[in-house]
Amino acid sequence: MCGIVAYVGQREAYPVVLKGLKRLEYRGYDSAGVALINDGSLKVYKKQGKVAELEDFVTGKNLSSQIAIGHTRWATHGEPCDRNAHPHLSGDGKLAMVHNGIIENYAQLKQELLKKGHTFTSDTDTEVLMHFIEEIKHSNQCGTEEAMRIALKRVVGAYVILIVDQDNPGTLLAARKGSPLVIGVGKGEHFLASDASPIVEYTKEVVYVNDYEIAILRADELILKNISNEVQTPYIQKLDIELAAIEKGGYDHFMLKEIFEQPQTIFDSLRGRLDAKQGTLTLGGIRGEYEDMLKNAKRIIMVACGTSWHAGLIAEYVIEELCRIPVEVEYASEFRYRNPVIGEGDVIIAISQSGETADTLVAIEAAKKKGAIILGVCNVVGSSIARLSHAGAYTHAGPEIGVASTKAFTAQLAVLNMIALKIAKDRGTITDQRYQYLLNELDAISDKVATALKLSDSIAAIAAKYKDARDFLYLGRGYNFPVALEGALKLKEISYIHAEGYPAAEMKHGPIALVDEHLPVVFVATKDSYYEKIVSNIQEIKARKGKVIAVVTEGDETIRGLADDVIVVPEADELVAPILSVIPMQLLAYHVGVQKGYDVDKPRNLAKSVTVE
Amino acid sequence: MCGIVAYVGQREAYPVVLKGLKRLEYRGYDSAGVALINDGSLKVYKKQGKVAELEDFVTGKNLSSQIAIGHTRWATHGEPCDRNAHPHLSGDGKLAMVHNGIIENYAQLKQELLKKGHTFTSDTDTEVLMHFIEEIKHSNQCGTEEAMRIALKRVVGAYVILIVDQDNPGTLLAARKGSPLVIGVGKGEHFLASDASPIVEYTKEVVYVNDYEIAILRADELILKNISNEVQTPYIQKLDIELAAIEKGGYDHFMLKEIFEQPQTIFDSLRGRLDAKQGTLTLGGIRGEYEDMLKNAKRIIMVACGTSWHAGLIAEYVIEELCRIPVEVEYASEFRYRNPVIGEGDVIIAISQSGETADTLVAIEAAKKKGAIILGVCNVVGSSIARLSHAGAYTHAGPEIGVASTKAFTAQLAVLNMIALKIAKDRGTITDQRYQYLLNELDAISDKVATALKLSDSIAAIAAKYKDARDFLYLGRGYNFPVALEGALKLKEISYIHAEGYPAAEMKHGPIALVDEHLPVVFVATKDSYYEKIVSNIQEIKARKGKVIAVVTEGDETIRGLADDVIVVPEADELVAPILSVIPMQLLAYHVGVQKGYDVDKPRNLAKSVTVE
Repeated sequence: MCGIVAYVGQREAYPVVLKGLKRLEYRGYDSAGVALINDGSLKVYKKQGKVAELEDFVTGKNLSSQIAIGHTRWATHGEPCDRNAHPHLSGDGKLAMVHNGIIENYAQLKQELLKKGHTFTSDTDTEVLMHFIEEIKHSNQCGTEEAMRIALKRVVGAYVILIVDQDNPGTLLAARKGSPLVIGVGKGEHFLASDASPIVEYTKEVVYVNDYEIAILRADELILKNISNEVQTPYIQKLDIELAAIEKGGYDHFMLKEIFEQPQTIFDSLRGRLDAKQGTLTLGGIRGEYEDMLKNAKRIIMVACGTSWHAGLIAEYVIEELCRIPVEVEYASEFRYRNPVIGEGDVIIAISQSGETADTLVAIEAAKKKGAIILGVCNVVGSSIARLSHAGAYTHAGPEIGVASTKAFTAQLAVLNMIALKIAKDRGTITDQRYQYLLNELDAISDKVATALKLSDSIAAIAAKYKDARDFLYLGRGYNFPVALEGALKLKEISYIHAEGYPAAEMKHGPIALVDEHLPVVFVATKDSYYEKIVSNIQEIKARKGKVIAVVTEGDETIRGLADDVIVVPEADELVAPILSVIPMQLLAYHVGVQKGYDVDKPRNLAKSVTVE
Repeated sequence: MCGIVAYVGQREAYPVVLKGLKRLEYRGYDSAGVALINDGSLKVYKKQGKVAELEDFVTGKNLSSQIAIGHTRWATHGEPCDRNAHPHLSGDGKLAMVHNGIIENYAQLKQELLKKGHTFTSDTDTEVLMHFIEEIKHSNQCGTEEAMRIALKRVVGAYVILIVDQDNPGTLLAARKGSPLVIGVGKGEHFLASDASPIVEYTKEVVYVNDYEIAILRADELILKNISNEVQTPYIQKLDIELAAIEKGGYDHFMLKEIFEQPQTIFDSLRGRLDAKQGTLTLGGIRGEYEDMLKNAKRIIMVACGTSWHAGLIAEYVIEELCRIPVEVEYASEFRYRNPVIGEGDVIIAISQSGETADTLVAIEAAKKKGAIILGVCNVVGSSIARLSHAGAYTHAGPEIGVASTKAFTAQLAVLNMIALKIAKDRGTITDQRYQYLLNELDAISDKVATALKLSDSIAAIAAKYKDARDFLYLGRGYNFPVALEGALKLKEISYIHAEGYPAAEMKHGPIALVDEHLPVVFVATKDSYYEKIVSNIQEIKARKGKVIAVVTEGDETIRGLADDVIVVPEADELVAPILSVIPMQLLAYHVGVQKGYDVDKPRNLAKSVTVE
């Protein structure tokens, strides 16, 4: 969360930075701001709200500059307002800084600075750090770069910071720990951003900055140092994303585009790996010793957050069923701080779309130090989690811009299913016949997803019926239980309706008190080994007059006779069915959100790629 | 859920059954009904609503009878209404039946009976079973007892059934599978009930009926048979509960009484087991080979539902921390149906207040068949789960009548803490110093709970401020994360406000979209190793203008400066702190529920002791 962009070179910097902020807006949109230098003096413009608000605000101003830094904010310290927007200035107004992350010891630093006479205009941890650097610059009689280095050694927390200095108008300073930072290397120009999307239309050559590195950028010079001031050799990589992949392509929203891309993105995630005709499965990123470690794993621990955590829950069921290895699924934020038991033979699978999720990243860093083997299931190539992992398999979902994750989730399920099948085959816990059958089922799932997408209009009609409901419950059992959790999360994110997911049988142990004639209850009730039990649960809800919306399998007449609304999806084996049954969940949330008039691509308070803990 | 009562003897049966139904009303209150025989003919009176509605309805009727069956319902099949209330009659009106459980193959049986010309007046599975028995009686030309036995062999599901027969006015028939049934043995009289509470004021001699047993009761005769018609010897036990324990004793509600009993019930659960002065811990129910099995466990799996599941989550953290054994916590309903991996050295701990929770019971039955070792942590002595377990430790919380569990939860935590300390000591994963320190902390907790209970009035004032909120979020980290879940569940159960619990850091991954100036967010933020992180999470909520109610430790000024309302509890070590930090959660839910005018002891749609899956 929080997006940062910077430019130094021959072009006008402001339009480059502004466009970059729009591309990064999915990371936060509480406020936006830029700092640039013209007529020899540092100017800062910042405004609460989305980037468009900033754009209106600066209309008519002289923005000419060949250097600029910009920020789009997801608030952590201090409410969203103009005053708390970035960039933040030093006391003398000569330095400006943008920051993504959290400075955990800011309260203590602030006390020290207040005693020395500093005054603050915002509630942010960022302004404290800016003043701290300024204080060191004065007291140590050193340059900004040196002051920044000294300051960062005292800082507890995670950050990317970018600084412009009025006295050094051709130089950008940047530093990273824990939050993502990419440098774009152009001809006589450099770009900096939280991810590659603001860079891709200018250059495909990028450098991923590592933790504890500092970058000094001029139009024609890139210097990378570590925190001990030793020069590092930048490792220049080629981007393989295209500009079209990060634009809307005719859809009303990125979310809808991404929902409809799923037949392709699931196919892409399977392509070159699963060959149903040949009966083979190849995972290029999990081979040799790591394949053996998975095969012989005593326990598998999934570590993830949010939607990725739901993918982990489904994978738990699939792996335990097929591979007979105990699986534990952990919230990354909890796992990190609770001294978990990690023994020999335990393998950790970290799941993250962005590969930058701070909670997951620090969790696996800690586990890695304890000697754990880490497999990464990430969508963003070269991301921090992907780089930290020993081995892994990328999801090939392409850039996901909608803040509510959709196509990344189904791609994760496809990849985790392949991992499960691979382990089962290696361990001999699956018969050849069932292995081949499940390869076929997985191979066929993207076509079934395409069929389910045709339900969009009829789901829009159901959404219209229930969009004014105060609350929703989402219920499922077995493989579909995490799908219910994911359906509830989507609705919550997009429509701000309080939706909650539960294993269907748990409802009796409390949540059923919420049920009355006003409450819609979504059942994920496709045909599987839990079917008879979930029919009983539907009857329990109907006995309390709740409204039942059920996702069912083609040909199901029993639930059709009980439910108020049914959504019919093709038949699929229960192990792969979640990839399909989640589609109506995504569409229902999307349509409710749109019909309520909300900006579904940028739901309030949220940010994609949560890079603070 | 569903309560059943019956009487046969010299007394007037109706007043005995009615009083019994009132005692069992915590098990369901959708409708109530009785069947009795006077002037040689079978009479059924039944009414939607609580038992008091039935009482009004029968005023002035001739209820004289020396035999009666009664039922208070928690609806599963068919909405709550007069028509669906129990007892249900046979087609000829000569047999009446009450039923607790679910007949899963009722739809198929109903089709067969419809073809044979039966007609039905209700939507229930119970009426189908009644007619099925009648049909067998006619086609096989046999008595009711024999017909019942044949019918039950074809039934799929769980049940307790009681039958009265107009042609046999001195005989009660009863059968059990999966749902609880107790016989009270008096002098020239017999009682039947779902638990001992309707019986205790008449006799202390009871027989717990086992699965697949059939009981034939007359005033002076008790015959117990198995389903193969072989006579069994009844095992008569002495009840050790007193009548006072199941009455309100001056409190407005059972829930409040039970909340205030906690200093005593926690003390009772520790008494005779934990001796802090001597530095010893003795668990009489876990000794010898079972103590060794726990000590050497490769993995511990907690199986539970609802509030007990939350106790399991806390125990997971405590056991992993102290004993370095991996712990998995499973929803019983999910565990049962998903072919979980259970290996040698795995120990299952089943947690259930009533010891009759159907989901938990069937889960551990299945696991036991696979060879798993089961430890029970139950509150009701002699309950099904307690009897099925290999070993275990009772919680000594006394009878819990309030449908929302309170004192059972803290007693579970006390017992699970002792189990964790015992294992840690046996395994040598704890230093003597820390062991002694934690014994002292646990020993001291009931006094701290007593201190926290003094906050009741100030929490009532906070409740008044927020009682009209549409939704609540409850957040915590680490040991306090499950406390947040439990706090949300209590509020949901008692006040019908949609409250949801989350690990505090997960909020950023979706739920934070719900936050605005109308949303109260309860933080369980006592001083522990997660404290700095949760302060950041509070700041994130305040940045979105959410209202923060925080449970904090004495002396905490940081959160006091951030939160809208604080509830201050004594300091306690983080491992035992949940026993204390849950107290304000219980009181907040209680006061909100009462202030909203709801019947907190009998929240809508709920039932205590969920004896259907």
